[in-house]
Amino acid sequence: MMHVLDSLFRDATLEPVLTQENLLRKMLFFESALAESQAAVGMIPADAAKAIAAAATLDALDLDALANGAARSGNLAIPLVKQLTAAVKAKSPDAAGFVHWTATSQDVIDTAAVLQVREAARRILQENERLCSRLFDLTREYRETVMVGRTWLQHAAPITFGLKTARMLAMMMRRGARLAEAVERASRLQFGGAVGTLSSAGDVATKLRRELAVRLQLPESTVPWHSERDTLADVVASLGVLNGALAKIARDISMLAQTEIAEVSEHHEAGRGSSSTMPQKRNPVTTAAVIAITRRVPALVSTYLSAMDQEHERGLGGWLAEWEVLPELLSLVGGAVHHSANLFSGLEIHADRMAKNLELTAGSLFAEAASAALAQRIGKEQAHALVAKCPDVVRAKGTDLRTALSADETVRAHLTSRDLDEIFDPRNQLRTAQQWIDVVLAEYSSSRTKQANAVR
Amino acid sequence: MMHVLDSLFRDATLEPVLTQENLLRKMLFFESALAESQAAVGMIPADAAKAIAAAATLDALDLDALANGAARSGNLAIPLVKQLTAAVKAKSPDAAGFVHWTATSQDVIDTAAVLQVREAARRILQENERLCSRLFDLTREYRETVMVGRTWLQHAAPITFGLKTARMLAMMMRRGARLAEAVERASRLQFGGAVGTLSSAGDVATKLRRELAVRLQLPESTVPWHSERDTLADVVASLGVLNGALAKIARDISMLAQTEIAEVSEHHEAGRGSSSTMPQKRNPVTTAAVIAITRRVPALVSTYLSAMDQEHERGLGGWLAEWEVLPELLSLVGGAVHHSANLFSGLEIHADRMAKNLELTAGSLFAEAASAALAQRIGKEQAHALVAKCPDVVRAKGTDLRTALSADETVRAHLTSRDLDEIFDPRNQLRTAQQWIDVVLAEYSSSRTKQANAVR
Amino acid sequence: MMHVLDSLFRDATLEPVLTQENLLRKMLFFESALAESQAAVGMIPADAAKAIAAAATLDALDLDALANGAARSGNLAIPLVKQLTAAVKAKSPDAAGFVHWTATSQDVIDTAAVLQVREAARRILQENERLCSRLFDLTREYRETVMVGRTWLQHAAPITFGLKTARMLAMMMRRGARLAEAVERASRLQFGGAVGTLSSAGDVATKLRRELAVRLQLPESTVPWHSERDTLADVVASLGVLNGALAKIARDISMLAQTEIAEVSEHHEAGRGSSSTMPQKRNPVTTAAVIAITRRVPALVSTYLSAMDQEHERGLGGWLAEWEVLPELLSLVGGAVHHSANLFSGLEIHADRMAKNLELTAGSLFAEAASAALAQRIGKEQAHALVAKCPDVVRAKGTDLRTALSADETVRAHLTSRDLDEIFDPRNQLRTAQQWIDVVLAEYSSSRTKQANAVR
Amino acid sequence: MMHVLDSLFRDATLEPVLTQENLLRKMLFFESALAESQAAVGMIPADAAKAIAAAATLDALDLDALANGAARSGNLAIPLVKQLTAAVKAKSPDAAGFVHWTATSQDVIDTAAVLQVREAARRILQENERLCSRLFDLTREYRETVMVGRTWLQHAAPITFGLKTARMLAMMMRRGARLAEAVERASRLQFGGAVGTLSSAGDVATKLRRELAVRLQLPESTVPWHSERDTLADVVASLGVLNGALAKIARDISMLAQTEIAEVSEHHEAGRGSSSTMPQKRNPVTTAAVIAITRRVPALVSTYLSAMDQEHERGLGGWLAEWEVLPELLSLVGGAVHHSANLFSGLEIHADRMAKNLELTAGSLFAEAASAALAQRIGKEQAHALVAKCPDVVRAKGTDLRTALSADETVRAHLTSRDLDEIFDPRNQLRTAQQWIDVVLAEYSSSRTKQANAVR
Repeated sequence: MMHVLDSLFRDATLEPVLTQENLLRKMLFFESALAESQAAVGMIPADAAKAIAAAATLDALDLDALANGAARSGNLAIPLVKQLTAAVKAKSPDAAGFVHWTATSQDVIDTAAVLQVREAARRILQENERLCSRLFDLTREYRETVMVGRTWLQHAAPITFGLKTARMLAMMMRRGARLAEAVERASRLQFGGAVGTLSSAGDVATKLRRELAVRLQLPESTVPWHSERDTLADVVASLGVLNGALAKIARDISMLAQTEIAEVSEHHEAGRGSSSTMPQKRNPVTTAAVIAITRRVPALVSTYLSAMDQEHERGLGGWLAEWEVLPELLSLVGGAVHHSANLFSGLEIHADRMAKNLELTAGSLFAEAASAALAQRIGKEQAHALVAKCPDVVRAKGTDLRTALSADETVRAHLTSRDLDEIFDPRNQLRTAQQWIDVVLAEYSSSRTKQANAVR
Repeated sequence: MMHVLDSLFRDATLEPVLTQENLLRKMLFFESALAESQAAVGMIPADAAKAIAAAATLDALDLDALANGAARSGNLAIPLVKQLTAAVKAKSPDAAGFVHWTATSQDVIDTAAVLQVREAARRILQENERLCSRLFDLTREYRETVMVGRTWLQHAAPITFGLKTARMLAMMMRRGARLAEAVERASRLQFGGAVGTLSSAGDVATKLRRELAVRLQLPESTVPWHSERDTLADVVASLGVLNGALAKIARDISMLAQTEIAEVSEHHEAGRGSSSTMPQKRNPVTTAAVIAITRRVPALVSTYLSAMDQEHERGLGGWLAEWEVLPELLSLVGGAVHHSANLFSGLEIHADRMAKNLELTAGSLFAEAASAALAQRIGKEQAHALVAKCPDVVRAKGTDLRTALSADETVRAHLTSRDLDEIFDPRNQLRTAQQWIDVVLAEYSSSRTKQANAVR
Repeated sequence: MMHVLDSLFRDATLEPVLTQENLLRKMLFFESALAESQAAVGMIPADAAKAIAAAATLDALDLDALANGAARSGNLAIPLVKQLTAAVKAKSPDAAGFVHWTATSQDVIDTAAVLQVREAARRILQENERLCSRLFDLTREYRETVMVGRTWLQHAAPITFGLKTARMLAMMMRRGARLAEAVERASRLQFGGAVGTLSSAGDVATKLRRELAVRLQLPESTVPWHSERDTLADVVASLGVLNGALAKIARDISMLAQTEIAEVSEHHEAGRGSSSTMPQKRNPVTTAAVIAITRRVPALVSTYLSAMDQEHERGLGGWLAEWEVLPELLSLVGGAVHHSANLFSGLEIHADRMAKNLELTAGSLFAEAASAALAQRIGKEQAHALVAKCPDVVRAKGTDLRTALSADETVRAHLTSRDLDEIFDPRNQLRTAQQWIDVVLAEYSSSRTKQANAVR
Repeated sequence: MMHVLDSLFRDATLEPVLTQENLLRKMLFFESALAESQAAVGMIPADAAKAIAAAATLDALDLDALANGAARSGNLAIPLVKQLTAAVKAKSPDAAGFVHWTATSQDVIDTAAVLQVREAARRILQENERLCSRLFDLTREYRETVMVGRTWLQHAAPITFGLKTARMLAMMMRRGARLAEAVERASRLQFGGAVGTLSSAGDVATKLRRELAVRLQLPESTVPWHSERDTLADVVASLGVLNGALAKIARDISMLAQTEIAEVSEHHEAGRGSSSTMPQKRNPVTTAAVIAITRRVPALVSTYLSAMDQEHERGLGGWLAEWEVLPELLSLVGGAVHHSANLFSGLEIHADRMAKNLELTAGSLFAEAASAALAQRIGKEQAHALVAKCPDVVRAKGTDLRTALSADETVRAHLTSRDLDEIFDPRNQLRTAQQWIDVVLAEYSSSRTKQANAVR
C-alpha cells in the first residue's frame, strides 16, 4: 500500500524508526541480549547464547507467517519466538530450547517499544532543535522589527516580530527539555516473566535483570510495569503538550499569512501551493499540514490515557490498544515538528507589510500608551475615558489618533508635542521587551549543548 | 511496509476499499464522469470526454510523483489532474485541455471520499448483518438457558443467555439502521468549483451538476458543502455509536470468559490464544482485539468533530485533518464488527457452568423474588428488611437462602412450601422476558430484508 | 456557589431544565406515574397510588440528606425512594409499602434523564430555529452583496454574503432535524426491574409497562436498555455534530471580524467588548464565548461513547460516568446555539468593507474567471499558465489584473473589452449561486412548521 | 443549585479551593500585591497602595453585577476591576485611579488561576500521600499473602497481594512526584500588560515584575505566557496520567470484588451499597465512583491540549475554553484520589478467598513453574508441549496438574517428588518478588518527607 499523503504529513527520516519491522528488530535485540545475559549468569551455555544472537536477525523472519501468528496469539512475540526458535534450531538444535527463556511476551514487546520510543524521540528532539535554532536566528534578526500586536484577533498595541519568535523559542526549548526528561524516565527495561515475579529465573532473577538492563542500555525499574503504564503515558502526554505548542505557532503563521495581513508567507517556489482552478493562488501548504496534524494528536493522547486501566498483572485489550497508537503519536508529532522546522526555514517575513499594517488603525495602536501617559497626569479613569472617545472622532473625521488627541483641550494642557512623539514612537514601548529577548537568547545559547545531549 | 498487526485488528475484505489507491480510483471516476457530463451538456467535445474516460485509470498514475506532488500542493487532486492531463495529452492532445474543467480539488476529493465511505459502509453493514444473524440464532437456541444476571459486577437475579443476546441483537439492528441512514444522507455529490458558486460552468452549471450526480449515482446537495462537514460528521458519529455498542458486547464476553466465571469461551483450536510461558493459557484473543479497537474509536470521533470549524469557503487544515482519520475510523469500526461476528460465530457457550454459577450464592439470586412475594403479604419495607438479614444467616450457618427463610417465623406464617418452590424457580421470573425475546426475534425477521438493502 | 461565568457561556432559560432538582422532579413524576399505573392494573390499591402521587413533590425531599444518601448508595434513587416512602408513611402508613414497587433505581433515573433530555432538546431546537430564522432574513437581505470568497485563508473568487448565510442556514436546518429525530428515538421508557426481566411484576408486567409508558408519554422499548446506551448516545452524537456546525459558523465570524478584514462586527453598545487597558478595543465577546464552548464539546462526546461498555445487565461505573456529562453536554451545546442566535441577531454587516476588500488584490479574484474564459479560446493549460504569470506583473508594476491581461497579446487576440467587462463583473459569476439560494430559502419556508413540531 | 452528586464524586475539602469565589479572592490578592509593588518601585503613592489593599476583599464585590459584567466584557477581570475601583473610590478617591495599573485582564486571571492550581495541587498531593501511606501498610501486611496472578483475565501464576499493592505504591509515588514537579514549573507569574511588553510600566517594568513575583510567591517567567499555555498544559497532562493510574487501581479492585472472585470488598456498613430491589446486594459504590470519575478525565485533557492554539499575543476563544475545564479537571482528579484513599482505608481483604481461588484450576497456576523445571532437564520446547497437554487430562479425569504430571513417564524420569513439592509451593516462586517489595518499601520510606514538601 502506497501512502501518498505521507510526504505531506510525516517526517521521512522518522518513519523507518516507527515501522513494525523496526519493532521486530528491537524484539530480536531483546532476545539476543536476554540469551547473552543468561549465559553471563550461568543459566544457559555460552554457545547457545551465541547461536541465538547469530540467528536473531530480521532476515530470519517470515513476515506473512508472523502476521497470521499474531492474529492467532494476539501478539507479535509468540510467532516471533516460534520463528526465531526454528531459525536457531536449524543451525544449533541444542540452543533452540533456550530462546526467550523466562521472559513473557510483554517483556519483549514493551522493551522493544521503549527502545523504539527512545530512538524516535532522538529524531524528534533533533528536529525541535532545528526549529529552535531557526527561531533563535529570526529573533536576533527581527528583534526590533515593529509589528502589530493582536489580542482577541484585534489590533492591540505594538510588539516586535522578534518578541513573537522569542516567545516561541522559549516555549519550544521548554518542550524539548520536557520530552527528553519523560523519555529518559520511561526508558526502563520491562522484565518480569508471566506475572511480574520473574519466578522462572529462580534466584539469579535480580542479577539476570541487571545484566539484561546493561546490555540494552536501559535502566531497570524497581518492579515490572506490565500493567502500570504511567511512565509511557508521561511520554505521550509530553508529546501532546509539544504538539499543542506547535499548533499555536502554526495557527499564528496561518493568521499572519492571510491575504489581508500578509506579514509572512511560506517559502515560494514554482508549483508550490498552487490551485487547480485559481492561477493566482499560493496556498500555505506546510502551515495547513501542521495544523491538520496537530489537530489529531490531542484525541490520541486521550486514547492512551483511557487505556491505562489494564487489569491485574497484564490486562485484556488495553495493552493492545497502545500498539498502533504510540507509533502513530510519534509519527504525527514528529511530522509536525519536522514540517514546522521546514516552515520556519523558508519563511518569508514581510517587514514592509508589518510596517504598513501598523498604520491601518490610524494610531489606535497607541491608545494604551496615550492613556497611560495621560493617566499619570489626570488619573487612570479619566484618561481611559478620554482616549476611548477618540476612535469615534478618528472614524468620523477620517483623521488619526494623534490629531484627535491634539485637538482635545485636556490633552493639550498635559501633553507636549514631544510627549506625543514619545507616545507614538513604538520603540519607546518596547525597551523592556528587548531586555526579555536578551534573556531568552542567552537561555538558548547556554542550553543548546545540554539539550542536544538530553536523551543519550 | 508490512502491517503485521492488521490481521489481528482489521477486516481483510474491507482494507482494500480504504486504501489511497481506491480513493485515487474514485477520483479518476469523478474526472471521467465529469468529462462525460460536460460532453452531455455541450461544454466539451464528445471525443474529448471519451479520451479522458479512456485515460482515467490507475495505471496512468505514477504514485511516487503523486506523493511528491501532494506534498507540494497540499492535496492529491492537483498532481492527479496533472498526471491525468499528461496521459490524455499523450494520446489526444486536443482533449487534454478539458480535464478537470470547472471543478476544484475539493470537489473531486470529497466526492471520491463519499464514494469510498459508501463502499466501506456496505461491507460494514454486511458484517453487522452477519453478527445479527448469529445473535438471532443464539437467542433462539439459548432463550431458556438460565444464567446469573449481574449488576455492579455482583450477582443480582436470574436471566437467560438468550435474553442477553436478544438485547445485543436489538441494539445491533438499531446500529445497522442508523449507520445506513447516515451514509445514505451523506452520499451527496460535492461540486461547486473554487468557492462553491460553480461560476466557471456558466449558465449550464445546474444542469451539469445534475448530469454528474446521475453518472456518479450520488444525489446532489442543495449547495456545496466544502466547509459544512456535518453530513459526513453524522456518518462518523454513527460509526462511533456502533463502536460503543460493540465495545459493550466485547466487554460482556471478556467478563463471562474469566477463569472464575467461564460461562463462555472463544472458539478454541491448537495454538490459538496460547502463551509464550504458560502452557495452560487460552487467552481470549479476539475479544481482546475488539476491546483494543473499540477503545480507540471515541477519540477519533472527537477529532473529526473538532475539525469541523473549517474557515470560509474552504478552510485551512481542518479538511486535511479528515483525510487519514475517516478511513482509519472506517477501518477500526469495520475491524471491530468483523471480529465481533467472528467471535460470535465460534463462541462456545457453557450452559453447565451457567447452571453451576447460579448456585454460587446459595439462593441469594432469589432474594428479590422472595422479597417481592413477601411484600405482597407483609408490605415492602418489612419484607425487604427481613430478606436483607438472611445473607448473614446464610454465611454464618453455611446454609442457603431458602433454608434461612424457612427458619423465619414470619416467613412461615405467610409463605407455603409451594410458594417457596415458585420463588426459587427462575423460570417463573422469566415469563415476561420470553415475550420480549419473541418481539425482538420478530423484529429481526421482518427487518432482515430491509436492512440488507438499506445502502444501495 | 455562584457561577459568575454562566451568563457568558450558558443559556439562562435552559439551565433550570438541567439542574439536579429538575431531575429529581422527574424522578418523582416517575414514581407517582408508576403507582398510578400499578393501581390501574390492579397491583396496588387506588388509594395508595393517590397517596404516593400526593407526596411526590420536591418539597418532600431533604436535599442534604439526599446528597449523603447518594454517596452511600451510589445513586439518587435509593435515598429518594427512602424519603418518599417516609413522606407517604407520614400521611398514609398503608400506602408507604407500595412506593417504587417492582422498579429498580436505574429505571427511575434513566427515565427521568430521558424526560430531561427531551425538555432540554425542545429549548435547544427553539433557539436553533431562532438562529435559522435570522440566517433566513440575512440571506434574503444580502443575497446579492458581493464579497471575497476565501479558501485556505487566501482570497479566491467572489461570492455573496447571502450565499454564505444560505450555506449556514441549510446546515442548521439539517442539524435541527437530526437532533429532533435522535431525541424522538431516544425518548423511551426505561422499565425492567433489577436485571431487566421485570420479574417482580409477574404476569401483568407487559401491561404495566404500557400503562406507565402512556402516563409518562414515552414509548416503550422492546427490551430494557439498562446497559445498551446507544439511543442516548445518538442524542449525544447529534449534539456533537450540531456543535461542530456552530463552531464553523463562529470561526467564520471571528475571521471576518478581524481588524484587517472588518466585514462584520458584533453588535456594539457601551462597555461591551471593552478592554481593561486599551481604550480603542471592541472585542468580539460573544464569538469568543461560542468558540470557547464549542471547543469543549467533542471531547465530552468521546467520553460518552467511551463509557458505553457497561457490563452485564447493569454496569459498574460507566453509567455513573454519564450522569454529569449528559447535562453538561446539553448545557454547552444549548449555550452555543443560544449565543449564536444572539450573535446573528445583533450582527453588524459592513457591506462597504466587503466591497473594498474585493479590490485588495487588484483583480486577482477574477483570475479564475479570466482563465476559464481564455481556456475556452486557447485551451485550459495555456490559459492557466498565462493568467498565473499576471500576479507578478501586477505586483511589479503596481497595476491590476485587468490591465496586465490587456497588455498581453494573446489575451488581446482572444478577448474583447466587453469580454473583459463580463469577466470582471462578479455578478456574472454568481447567477447559479442565486438559484441555489432560492432553493435553500424555499426549503426553509416549507420546513419551518415541521421543525417547530418535530419534538412534541 | 444543589449538587447532590458531589458527595459521591468530589472531595469536599478540595471543592472550596476550586470555586469562582476563590479565584476572585486570588484576583483581588493580585490587585493588592500589584499596587503594593508599584508603591515599592515608586510608581504610585504608598497611601494609594494601602487603600487598594484595604478594599480588595471579596465583600467588596457584587457577584450578580460581576456575572453580568463578565458576559459583556468576556472575562471576570474587567468587572472586578470596575467594582474594586468603585470600592476604593468610596473611601480614597485619589487612590482609585491606581487600581490595576499597567496590568491586562489576562495577567490577573492567569496569575489567580495559577495560585488556585497550586492550592488545589497541595490538597491532591496530600490525598495521594494518604493513599500511598495506606498502600505501604497493606504491602507490609500482605507481602506474603499468595493469590492468583491474572493475565488476559485468566489465571496465570501466583503472586502476592503485597506485590500488587507494591506496584500500585511505586506508581502512585511516581505520580505524586511528577504532579508536584509540573505544578512547581507552572507556578509562574503572568504579567505582561496588553500585548506582553509591559510597556505601560516604562523603565521600571522588570523591577516591578520582580516585586510582584516576590509578593505573590510566584517565580517570574522569562517572557509572558499569555498565549503559550504549555506549562499549565503540563499540569493538566500530569493530572491525566495520575488519573490513569487511579483508573487502573480501581479497575483491579472492581475485578477482585466480583461475586465470583470476592478477594476484596469495600468496607461495609449498614445501608452502604444496598440496592432498592435486591436485599442481598452490597454494591462497590466507591469503586464505581472512582471508575466513573476516571473515565471522564482523558477527554478533558484532550480539550485542554486542543485549546492551546491561541492566536497572536492573546487569543480568541481558546483561553476562555480553559476557564471551566481546569478547575473541573482538578476537581475530578482530586475526587478520584480522595475516594481512592477512602477505598483503600476501608478495604476488606479476604485472604481465605485468595487461598481458595488458588485451587480453582487444579494446579494449572503452576504450569509455568513445572514447565520451567522440566525445561532445564528436557529442553524448553518439549517441556512446554508436555505440560500443555496436561489441562486436558486434568479436565477429562477430574484430577489436578500435579497428579497428571506424576502420571507421565518423562516427568517421573526427571522430577522427584521433592522437585514437585518445590514446583507446587508458590513461596518458591516469589522470592525475587520479596526483594523487589523491599526496594519499593524503602523508596517510599525515604521519599515520604521529600514528597510532602514538594509543592511549597
